Amino acid sequence: MTPGAPRAAIVASGNELLDGRTRNTNAEFASRDLSRRGAKVLQIVTVADDASRLRAVLRDSLEAGPDLLVVGGGLGTTHDDLTAECIAAVLGVPLVEHPQALELLEERVRRLSQRRGLDFAQTFAVARRQALMPAGSTPVPPAGVAPGIAAQSGPTRIFALPGVPFEFESMWTGIADGLQGEGMFPSVAVTVVRIYGVGELQVAPLFESLPRDRLELGINVGGGEVTVRLRHAAEPEAAAQAAAVVAALRAGAPVFSENGDTVDDIVAERLRAGGSTLAVAESCTGGLLGARITARPGSSAYFVGGVLSYADRVKTERLAVPAGLLARHGAVSEPVAAAMAEGARDSIGAEYALAITGVAGPEGGTAEKPVGLVFFACAGPEGTRVREGRFPGDRESVRSYAAGAALHLLREALGA
Amino acid sequence: MTPGAPRAAIVASGNELLDGRTRNTNAEFASRDLSRRGAKVLQIVTVADDASRLRAVLRDSLEAGPDLLVVGGGLGTTHDDLTAECIAAVLGVPLVEHPQALELLEERVRRLSQRRGLDFAQTFAVARRQALMPAGSTPVPPAGVAPGIAAQSGPTRIFALPGVPFEFESMWTGIADGLQGEGMFPSVAVTVVRIYGVGELQVAPLFESLPRDRLELGINVGGGEVTVRLRHAAEPEAAAQAAAVVAALRAGAPVFSENGDTVDDIVAERLRAGGSTLAVAESCTGGLLGARITARPGSSAYFVGGVLSYADRVKTERLAVPAGLLARHGAVSEPVAAAMAEGARDSIGAEYALAITGVAGPEGGTAEKPVGLVFFACAGPEGTRVREGRFPGDRESVRSYAAGAALHLLREALGA
Repeated sequence: MTPGAPRAAIVASGNELLDGRTRNTNAEFASRDLSRRGAKVLQIVTVADDASRLRAVLRDSLEAGPDLLVVGGGLGTTHDDLTAECIAAVLGVPLVEHPQALELLEERVRRLSQRRGLDFAQTFAVARRQALMPAGSTPVPPAGVAPGIAAQSGPTRIFALPGVPFEFESMWTGIADGLQGEGMFPSVAVTVVRIYGVGELQVAPLFESLPRDRLELGINVGGGEVTVRLRHAAEPEAAAQAAAVVAALRAGAPVFSENGDTVDDIVAERLRAGGSTLAVAESCTGGLLGARITARPGSSAYFVGGVLSYADRVKTERLAVPAGLLARHGAVSEPVAAAMAEGARDSIGAEYALAITGVAGPEGGTAEKPVGLVFFACAGPEGTRVREGRFPGDRESVRSYAAGAALHLLREALGA
Repeated sequence: MTPGAPRAAIVASGNELLDGRTRNTNAEFASRDLSRRGAKVLQIVTVADDASRLRAVLRDSLEAGPDLLVVGGGLGTTHDDLTAECIAAVLGVPLVEHPQALELLEERVRRLSQRRGLDFAQTFAVARRQALMPAGSTPVPPAGVAPGIAAQSGPTRIFALPGVPFEFESMWTGIADGLQGEGMFPSVAVTVVRIYGVGELQVAPLFESLPRDRLELGINVGGGEVTVRLRHAAEPEAAAQAAAVVAALRAGAPVFSENGDTVDDIVAERLRAGGSTLAVAESCTGGLLGARITARPGSSAYFVGGVLSYADRVKTERLAVPAGLLARHGAVSEPVAAAMAEGARDSIGAEYALAITGVAGPEGGTAEKPVGLVFFACAGPEGTRVREGRFPGDRESVRSYAAGAALHLLREALGA
């Protein structure tokens, strides 16, 4: 562990998080944010809306004496919202109606009732239990309706927040910014190296023999990339070890990023800096590439638009892909990928255009064109590059790999 | 808890799951699958690649005596792959090279080496530690390279699988199908009721006073929907309680699904059954709606394609939105949403077309048109419906709400 880094534990409560209904985005958000600030997340426990189990998990999480315990969920108005009473039980204090929480709640319920045309008194009667808090705790101002709870147990600062993702995220960010201001997070250096085009088996041996006792080193794979992450205290010996590992990776593998920037970051920055524009033509990904590009605020500076040419008819009519080309080679082919990219570039009017056509599965595969076969192309001022990919996994996996591979092709075309 | 349901615990190991780098899709997948089969997931613990911590979590998870313990991750080739040795330690048995695992591994490494043009001997030397297993355990045939581990501890069957999502998912599905064949999963009834258009505060009071001691009842919100989930043993008294809750929800709230079908399921089924076709025109969502529609296998039966009209120029040129309309009302307006849907319907050639235009943020909001304001339209044979949404949260939240709201508008247009 990086010396001096505050240690955090995360508890997420909610039956919906245990039966696959709902993705645990709050734990993802808090762990990413804590890590970015230099804290170390020890563990994340997801637990049912069950008082005895939640109490046990809270007790266990406190036992390790973390600096922070972040609890998400269970602050709503229904019978399975148990967080406040369980924290009170674990702290050994009564649950009381907190005057300031009640005030915050009343104001929020009033606004909500007005906006939605609800009866205030009736709604407030249902919401009122959200002002119950462990004695001695402080309310965290709500982003939605429910206030959060700030409490202390021995060395651990406890923050319990509502489970609705935008409330959790906004309230946690406010709290963490406050803790940052108090100097809770130390100086930690993090280096993230990203590699595209080889697997973990080729990357791992590059650093296995190097000294790295002062590093926390993680390697993981996803979307065709290998990511190596180095964390260490901001001191010279650790920095030297990190630099040696990075140099070994650079020498032995196709490193495309050494500062943590993703392929999305890199192409966005290049397009913006060059005043370039981008269009897309998507078949099997059906919008996934466009959605990924426009997930980024400010993408309108370079992303113009695109065509989802799912049916072959749209490929010929909207992208001017010659019908003969489709008939000769099939929609999933190198020439059609190239024609789609060129058609998007011309018809939408952009400096660069990316095209994807493939067999995402589970149906539609043949011996010659199996599920996972994807062609992607990048048309630009210097011509058109086409690449073939054979991606593993299910439909979601193939589509996700394909969108990433297309961005890497654009990265190469942009010389990055 | 539903009586007779097998109880499961899930452990996911990996530093990348604790610092926000990687989404814990394996735990999501296993918990969803287990829940679908009628098992009850007690908790999910995500833990660092740290031997002492992983051992402690495995011990804790076994202590509750679950029927199943599913472990994901930590079976790779690097120094932080510790699952096999930690399971061995917890079971109190040595770690041994398993002959059958070695055979499976060798075959997989041979195939991988051929496909990627790697030196077999060198690659196999790196991979060989993946054949180390707790004495007395059985290898699970690999979906990728690494075999899984099947072991037993008291009443608990332990399955450890590699963390790469498609390997984990494919291997887990094979194991669970086998357990299903052995009769491990009992008869449990699950009813999922979905509501669109009101919030949790309006839904919760509808069932708070009804008898429900034989039900496991969960309520959660997301994407503008409220989902109520009822689980109970397949016996008459519990079924009657469930039916009463469902009737109360139907009477008091805009229920659109009582069988668990999502809005995505419903529109897909209606389009397919009616032989209808669908196109999209997306501005602020940039492809998210098309990606969501085409995430479904077989969507090519009704989804034709679309236009990502991110820039206004693409709205006029590709969707025939009158420039005067854009100038008068702005791109984020009711008339432009309608014109986009009608333009997509005409130019792509589909029976129905959905359009989305809005301010996803964080920039671009004004007093008159704040972040979160989205207009969406559905053009169809009976004319064009337009709706306004004001969605909370960040860019991702607004875009996700908008795609869902557009699907609900289509659902209404389809009379479902």
